[in-house]
Amino acid sequence: MNNLEKAWKSINGGIAAPKGFYAAGVQAGIKYKDKYDVALIFSDVQAQAAGVYTRNLVKAHPLYLTQHHLENGLARAIVVNSGNANACVGELGDQAAFAMAEVAGMYLAVPPEDVLVASTGVIGVEMPLDRVLNGIRVASSLLLNDVVKGIRGQKEASDDGAHRAAQAIMTTDTMVKEYAYELPCSQGVIHLGAIAKGSGMIHPNMGTMLGFLTTDAHISSEDLQRILREAVDESFNMVTVDGDTSTNDMVLLLANGASGITLGGEDWSNFEKMVKAMCVRMAQDIARDGEGASKFMEVTVSGAKTKEDARKIARGVCGSSLVKTALFGEDANWGRILTAAGYSEAEFNPGLVDILLGDLVVAKAGRAVEFSEDKAKEILGLKDIHISLNLHNGDEQATAWGCDLTHEYITINGSYRT
Amino acid sequence: MNNLEKAWKSINGGIAAPKGFYAAGVQAGIKYKDKYDVALIFSDVQAQAAGVYTRNLVKAHPLYLTQHHLENGLARAIVVNSGNANACVGELGDQAAFAMAEVAGMYLAVPPEDVLVASTGVIGVEMPLDRVLNGIRVASSLLLNDVVKGIRGQKEASDDGAHRAAQAIMTTDTMVKEYAYELPCSQGVIHLGAIAKGSGMIHPNMGTMLGFLTTDAHISSEDLQRILREAVDESFNMVTVDGDTSTNDMVLLLANGASGITLGGEDWSNFEKMVKAMCVRMAQDIARDGEGASKFMEVTVSGAKTKEDARKIARGVCGSSLVKTALFGEDANWGRILTAAGYSEAEFNPGLVDILLGDLVVAKAGRAVEFSEDKAKEILGLKDIHISLNLHNGDEQATAWGCDLTHEYITINGSYRT
Repeated sequence: MNNLEKAWKSINGGIAAPKGFYAAGVQAGIKYKDKYDVALIFSDVQAQAAGVYTRNLVKAHPLYLTQHHLENGLARAIVVNSGNANACVGELGDQAAFAMAEVAGMYLAVPPEDVLVASTGVIGVEMPLDRVLNGIRVASSLLLNDVVKGIRGQKEASDDGAHRAAQAIMTTDTMVKEYAYELPCSQGVIHLGAIAKGSGMIHPNMGTMLGFLTTDAHISSEDLQRILREAVDESFNMVTVDGDTSTNDMVLLLANGASGITLGGEDWSNFEKMVKAMCVRMAQDIARDGEGASKFMEVTVSGAKTKEDARKIARGVCGSSLVKTALFGEDANWGRILTAAGYSEAEFNPGLVDILLGDLVVAKAGRAVEFSEDKAKEILGLKDIHISLNLHNGDEQATAWGCDLTHEYITINGSYRT
Repeated sequence: MNNLEKAWKSINGGIAAPKGFYAAGVQAGIKYKDKYDVALIFSDVQAQAAGVYTRNLVKAHPLYLTQHHLENGLARAIVVNSGNANACVGELGDQAAFAMAEVAGMYLAVPPEDVLVASTGVIGVEMPLDRVLNGIRVASSLLLNDVVKGIRGQKEASDDGAHRAAQAIMTTDTMVKEYAYELPCSQGVIHLGAIAKGSGMIHPNMGTMLGFLTTDAHISSEDLQRILREAVDESFNMVTVDGDTSTNDMVLLLANGASGITLGGEDWSNFEKMVKAMCVRMAQDIARDGEGASKFMEVTVSGAKTKEDARKIARGVCGSSLVKTALFGEDANWGRILTAAGYSEAEFNPGLVDILLGDLVVAKAGRAVEFSEDKAKEILGLKDIHISLNLHNGDEQATAWGCDLTHEYITINGSYRT
């Protein structure tokens, strides 16, 4: 992000680090044995909530239900399954999403309208609903035991529930994506917890990814919605793994006020920054964990006339199959970078563009320059590759994240459904 | 295309099949030994000409020169090299393109303004101009020997020059793309010849592809331009291999009138159809020969409200990495097809869409239906896969072509430059 000292610091506890939040994950056997696949996130007091969803015209069934349940800006729980997207299966899909909310609500003693539902996995296959609902029942009882401990003052940041919930939302992810920050404020300390999943079918806007954030600060759903929208635009909407935008993407942010703290002044501004930083961190980890990825790519475009031009080019370069394969091959083929910028539909003058790999200038004013192939090899041999384009055309900039395209991606996606 | 009987038939002779056209290809050693890499196409009388170019903002140097030389709608020759794109190298690139036109013009005794120039290969590397110009000199003398034979009535459709020219424009192509048709008209027979190249960096609009067409019919450059534009929209602009649009794409159509035949009525309409059919055939072969492709994909979208919606969806499905890897894995994952349609930015109602693999219905009204996995395996086991989507939303339709995404694509593109 930047080199300024951050006001917050990392802590343990993941999604359940904020006061009053609890989580659980269980193995319901939805698609695989010995895989956590049902997650529950719960606030023991009413929470304000905000959501951002896929822009794919084809939306999975739980998205409609969650949007509907969020109309009043309130929520108590999130129930999530992996292994089945609950998408494109007709009325059965709507019924399955509702049943998940209903059973979770029943077992957690909250109205079904306060339960938000998310799914990820294969599209067009009927949900094994019995297994999912059984999973929800088991997860509920595990979670309620944590609530009891919480009320008795025995809740620990190390509770396993949050970690299992983070595992339960994974599909082809190879690393667990859970995070927690604490932010000292004038009135006391507030917390932000998060889990995410995402690895393939990742593309602006949002790709197949799920992100859930919780905080114990006291914030209105309107403010949450604005903060989340801005944060998503700079993070999840700037990640691409394979150019495919999924039917199931969803990012939710819940604030239950359990810290008793209302934010103002600098605290408020720090909180906004912290949420954005959290979203960027999750987005980067999603790119880093892109299906089959062996390298992480960060593309920064500066000197753009408009922010949107900078974003188009950054995403265009990150999304180019030829740039991605060149990274995999550790080939300093900057012509592919300029070519991708050229078809990104942004406005710029190709004759002014400088391109850098790390700190090595490989093209200047849109043209070949002499550079050390050894130095280029060294930079491209790293696991994290930074590509910069300076358009010399204005003051706007943007950053996007992606990964290389490898044999492993083909292997993973050649046989996902079966 | 359709099942109607065609008015034309295939013949030998490729790009030099039309009267008064000659071609040559030589090994100039631009990038590889023992590879034909300089091609010359020549009309021994003035020809009317039309061109369509890449929409990439970054354009290779020869494109500017060719556009300039075509301002008067006239041309005598096309000179092409493979192995170097002559793109993004500054003034040297403009000078190299001009030198190619000048030397070809000098040796063929036509003004340089009547020579069109095209290049394909690696971007951002200076042209080995000496070798290219030497190649042009040798090609010219080979070609002029054919002209002498032609004047003496000894020109044969089997002349090797045309075939070598077709080879000389190839880069990662694995098959030569040359074609010729003859069309009987009321006043006599006219001919259409063509060569194309294209394999990677292929995407609407036009990808890295070159296409050259010649005819001995008498047609104005305005009519040629309109026919070519329409034909390209339905063919080259509906092909995607990897989503990357190149800096060098160009399709040129020359008509020298050497048959002495001016077209009217049904002949004219047949000629238009023949040019479109030729372009579609070239486009299909480019998809079939996509880098690393093991399968050819044809996606037909029907029942669309607008032609543009049908095109967006057809291209979107062809371009989806996840559809492409599913084809490679022979996995009937229709959810990925509907998902790709959903993010194509076309307008449609997902709840009405039927999807077929070959003649097997795999989804109806946007939902899963029971289908025989054995039948699906059989269809996906073929080399040519036909995917149909009926949107039930109107009367427009479009077809796009692509290929699967394979390990071989990664291998080819991991080390193209070096």
